[in-house]
Amino acid sequence: MAQHHHEDLFENRRQFQLERLILFSDAVFAIAITLLVIEIRVPEIDYATNNLLAHLRDELLLRFPQFFGFILSFAVIGQFWTNHHRLFGLVNNFNNGLLWLNLHMLFWIVLVPFTSGLNSHYGDLDLVWQIYSLNLFMIGLSLFFLYRYIGNPKRNLSELAHDKLARKYAYLRSLSVASIFLLGAIFASFNRYFFHKAARYVYVLIPFVLIIINRAASKHIAK
Amino acid sequence: MAQHHHEDLFENRRQFQLERLILFSDAVFAIAITLLVIEIRVPEIDYATNNLLAHLRDELLLRFPQFFGFILSFAVIGQFWTNHHRLFGLVNNFNNGLLWLNLHMLFWIVLVPFTSGLNSHYGDLDLVWQIYSLNLFMIGLSLFFLYRYIGNPKRNLSELAHDKLARKYAYLRSLSVASIFLLGAIFASFNRYFFHKAARYVYVLIPFVLIIINRAASKHIAK
Amino acid sequence: MAQHHHEDLFENRRQFQLERLILFSDAVFAIAITLLVIEIRVPEIDYATNNLLAHLRDELLLRFPQFFGFILSFAVIGQFWTNHHRLFGLVNNFNNGLLWLNLHMLFWIVLVPFTSGLNSHYGDLDLVWQIYSLNLFMIGLSLFFLYRYIGNPKRNLSELAHDKLARKYAYLRSLSVASIFLLGAIFASFNRYFFHKAARYVYVLIPFVLIIINRAASKHIAK
Amino acid sequence: MAQHHHEDLFENRRQFQLERLILFSDAVFAIAITLLVIEIRVPEIDYATNNLLAHLRDELLLRFPQFFGFILSFAVIGQFWTNHHRLFGLVNNFNNGLLWLNLHMLFWIVLVPFTSGLNSHYGDLDLVWQIYSLNLFMIGLSLFFLYRYIGNPKRNLSELAHDKLARKYAYLRSLSVASIFLLGAIFASFNRYFFHKAARYVYVLIPFVLIIINRAASKHIAK
Repeated sequence: MAQHHHEDLFENRRQFQLERLILFSDAVFAIAITLLVIEIRVPEIDYATNNLLAHLRDELLLRFPQFFGFILSFAVIGQFWTNHHRLFGLVNNFNNGLLWLNLHMLFWIVLVPFTSGLNSHYGDLDLVWQIYSLNLFMIGLSLFFLYRYIGNPKRNLSELAHDKLARKYAYLRSLSVASIFLLGAIFASFNRYFFHKAARYVYVLIPFVLIIINRAASKHIAK
Repeated sequence: MAQHHHEDLFENRRQFQLERLILFSDAVFAIAITLLVIEIRVPEIDYATNNLLAHLRDELLLRFPQFFGFILSFAVIGQFWTNHHRLFGLVNNFNNGLLWLNLHMLFWIVLVPFTSGLNSHYGDLDLVWQIYSLNLFMIGLSLFFLYRYIGNPKRNLSELAHDKLARKYAYLRSLSVASIFLLGAIFASFNRYFFHKAARYVYVLIPFVLIIINRAASKHIAK
Repeated sequence: MAQHHHEDLFENRRQFQLERLILFSDAVFAIAITLLVIEIRVPEIDYATNNLLAHLRDELLLRFPQFFGFILSFAVIGQFWTNHHRLFGLVNNFNNGLLWLNLHMLFWIVLVPFTSGLNSHYGDLDLVWQIYSLNLFMIGLSLFFLYRYIGNPKRNLSELAHDKLARKYAYLRSLSVASIFLLGAIFASFNRYFFHKAARYVYVLIPFVLIIINRAASKHIAK
Repeated sequence: MAQHHHEDLFENRRQFQLERLILFSDAVFAIAITLLVIEIRVPEIDYATNNLLAHLRDELLLRFPQFFGFILSFAVIGQFWTNHHRLFGLVNNFNNGLLWLNLHMLFWIVLVPFTSGLNSHYGDLDLVWQIYSLNLFMIGLSLFFLYRYIGNPKRNLSELAHDKLARKYAYLRSLSVASIFLLGAIFASFNRYFFHKAARYVYVLIPFVLIIINRAASKHIAK
């Protein structure tokens, strides 16, 4: 009985160590997603200006691309968060490698407020869109690395290791999202009007691709 | 017995996934509420200025509307947080839709430091008060959406789904708060002194409306 | 048995709702304590300046009072956090009033990065030290309010409600700390060199007063 | 039975108080690691500038040392976080001393965004590298203090107290990392090209030293 109690305590602590890893990631996600708005600065207009209202309206209209960039980055980080949420719903153990792979992913998350700010200011430049897209691609790729790591049957980290089909769909899902971001970066490297536009609109595909994969997955994987 | 243990583990993890959603929201709430103070910048006066004290006092007095805006926004986010706290006290499950509806609400929370900063600087302009009020209205509305989502009997997300009366009061409560913020935005669109003032004072109604609804609710819902 | 299980679930959720209140507070504490360093800005010196090193050294020396203010504010918020940690170690239930009293305390915590920044820049001015001290006094006072609220035997919130002696010492502890900050504010209002200095050094008393009270408490309260 | 239930509740609360200490630390870690990116400011170039692209490219290239500094500081804080994660995986109790020792460590963590920012801007100056290295040394040293504190057999805080060999390796590990940062600071105080460079490259040793120690530890400590 005492032995049993001791094992329970140990198991609880191990569980909490895993939860700590997850909650630490969430804090980083939360700060990165909230810092996005800091890029949209409140216009500083002298209160004594003639026609203050018109000036302010102009300044706010000038910030329109920044708002659009803010919405996009919020949605993208939100999507990655739901993916991370899903991933760690499958994890039941941790090791040093998982800690560092997760830190690697957080590194690219932390960078988003910068590349998103760059994009808000100079979004027309293809170079800037490439940097931004590559940042998002790296997040997608590191999520794929995480899925591969926990899916490896040699490691006792996740139930995914024992379910080949679920694993296949998890890899497909994360690689597809990553690929679309990579596509955005590649398109932006061609110096043509069509590709300039395509690089910016290709992200629209993401929800559709995810819906198709999820539908196929739920058909094949009997829950 | 082993089966039992396995089910417990699965249930625990599911529970933690829900808690993670909640704690992530709290991190965003906490950052948004703390960033509010950043808008009130420390005055930068040269130390060699004659009569430094008088200069600083003037600068601080100039920040008075900013302090007022800070207190208002803190109270409003605080009120939304207590509402979110109450809402998720009723939730016992999650799905992808709930994740995204919650992210939608967080989007409007993250925007508050910006619209509140705008309001602190140019609160006299009706346009700015409209933007600020509409932001708060959207938070209220997304909380109503969340209540509707978890209250839907077809989804197995909350005990609210089985209690028609509690549901009615939850809807009424969130819609009333949202309506008052909408009223503020509408009032600010009339170009009259009375409405200009009314738009700013209508928020005072919120605590009273909430007290009335809560009193009626506790009368009707026998706990 | 099923009934038992249902009660357990309900109790677990109630417990988590209380933990959520605490972890939300911690997030606010953590952000406020980390924002303190933002006030100490990295000096911006042109790289082409002659004798860059000497310039930088001068700039860093100029920031010395800011470092001191940073250390002080860090220690003070740290002390309040340990006190909040101790307080909620005694709480086993929550209600709406506790949520709002806690938000009230967090309001004053959130204000610290501003008043501390003010203090770092203009700490010599008695007005600034008064503002800073009053901010800290309000935190101490709101912790006393929290102790009073959970200590009230009519409310079923804490074991403190059933232990008159522990309550007495908890009140004494929080009121003493608050009083010392109030003393700092009062001293700073006398326009004399002695009081100007005393206002700044009176905080040194805090650890000693706390040690004396804790010693007396552990003597009287048999654990 | 009732007695048993009561003891469980008490034990659960004590456990949560310890988890709160850990999650508060994580929030501070998360904010510090995310604030690092704020130092890399988005270049502000007038949109009407001739050859905007070339200007932006130049500005981004100028930020290269800042990126390098960002990566370094991210990796270092990440390493300290994994160490803190490992440390508190061994802790099963807390006292006031542990709270304050942990706050002491967080103090040095909170300082990193400043010293790292300094380093990003003036990394060539040995004085700046010394400040940065000493900051990191202090984090390493406070982790060693934490290990010593929980390892003390007189205190009932950790299983480490009963395992002399594990303790020895924990001390060795934290002291080695701290020493390497101290070495960086010392090297930077010699006014020679070789030491100027050595101070910057000595950190590369850290992963290798850790691998050697961990290997030796896993050989000696039968799990």
